[in-house]
Amino acid sequence: MPKVNRNKLQQGLIQVYTGNGKGKTTAALGLALRAIGWNYKVCMIQFIKGNKEIGEIKISKKLIPKLSIHQFCQNKKYSIGKPDQKYQESVGAAWKFFLKTLAEKKYDIIILDEINNAIKYKLLNVDEVIEVLKNKPKNIELILTGRGAPKKIIKIADLVTEMKLIKHPFYKGIKARRGIEY
Amino acid sequence: MPKVNRNKLQQGLIQVYTGNGKGKTTAALGLALRAIGWNYKVCMIQFIKGNKEIGEIKISKKLIPKLSIHQFCQNKKYSIGKPDQKYQESVGAAWKFFLKTLAEKKYDIIILDEINNAIKYKLLNVDEVIEVLKNKPKNIELILTGRGAPKKIIKIADLVTEMKLIKHPFYKGIKARRGIEY
Repeated sequence: MPKVNRNKLQQGLIQVYTGNGKGKTTAALGLALRAIGWNYKVCMIQFIKGNKEIGEIKISKKLIPKLSIHQFCQNKKYSIGKPDQKYQESVGAAWKFFLKTLAEKKYDIIILDEINNAIKYKLLNVDEVIEVLKNKPKNIELILTGRGAPKKIIKIADLVTEMKLIKHPFYKGIKARRGIEY
Repeated sequence: MPKVNRNKLQQGLIQVYTGNGKGKTTAALGLALRAIGWNYKVCMIQFIKGNKEIGEIKISKKLIPKLSIHQFCQNKKYSIGKPDQKYQESVGAAWKFFLKTLAEKKYDIIILDEINNAIKYKLLNVDEVIEVLKNKPKNIELILTGRGAPKKIIKIADLVTEMKLIKHPFYKGIKARRGIEY
């Protein structure tokens, strides 16, 4: 068996999960689970979501320092449309935290949750984001999630999946369920 | 805060993750992570994959009994095409194990990993699968993953996401990476 390289990815890529279907943040969390199985360290930065009563935060407390999740927004509810202007400040704080985290190189994988929405609605400057992504440390994997990933982001990403909604129970009137949707 | 119902989902649905993009099994794993944050119990049954050196199995050993993963196939490598006839036996064993697990009601969420492929290639009878899904206990959530989910399966599912490949690094000659793809 090859020796396990515990702390460094040989080749960190840029992944994007976008589209209107369920599974974007969820896939990023699955990736986190798999990665911590190999002793990598994962940091999730939530750009727009602010609800602390979610399964991923509960479990992350038991998995720290392997998985840490950071929120910057006070809003418990964010629907899928255009974020309010009040998100500007918290998105800015999340971005600053990301820059610091990236520079520190403490994590192997950094998940930028809902950053696509933040860029799409111009809460972040797409060219500034791309400049940072292009110059990321080689050993760090970045995962960008959220609807409406801009073309410029897709262009520089290595892996892009569009989660396409075929059917969703919300349209049958079923509300978000604890342990499943959050 | 509402009292946490630790052991029962009020309403278990049927979810399907299909399509040719990355993120199907990964989303199911993310769902597992989130669910165990709420103290639900999750069982993943891998119908076609047989590699034990994967991050999700490594981490599941630390999370048992909240997350358990079961494989029935000896084949370490399964590519995305038609499974060999030798899979027939292991898929049958996986299906039998699923029926037993479903009847025991020990888990809140059961992930049937790659079952879509198994049905598509007629290693399982679609009508038999549907009969079981239709009569599942109300409190259990079922997650079906794999490419090429048959129409009949999509029809009875509550939530369906198609993971659509937009870009994949394999096409740039980058091989599957530990901690990311497995």
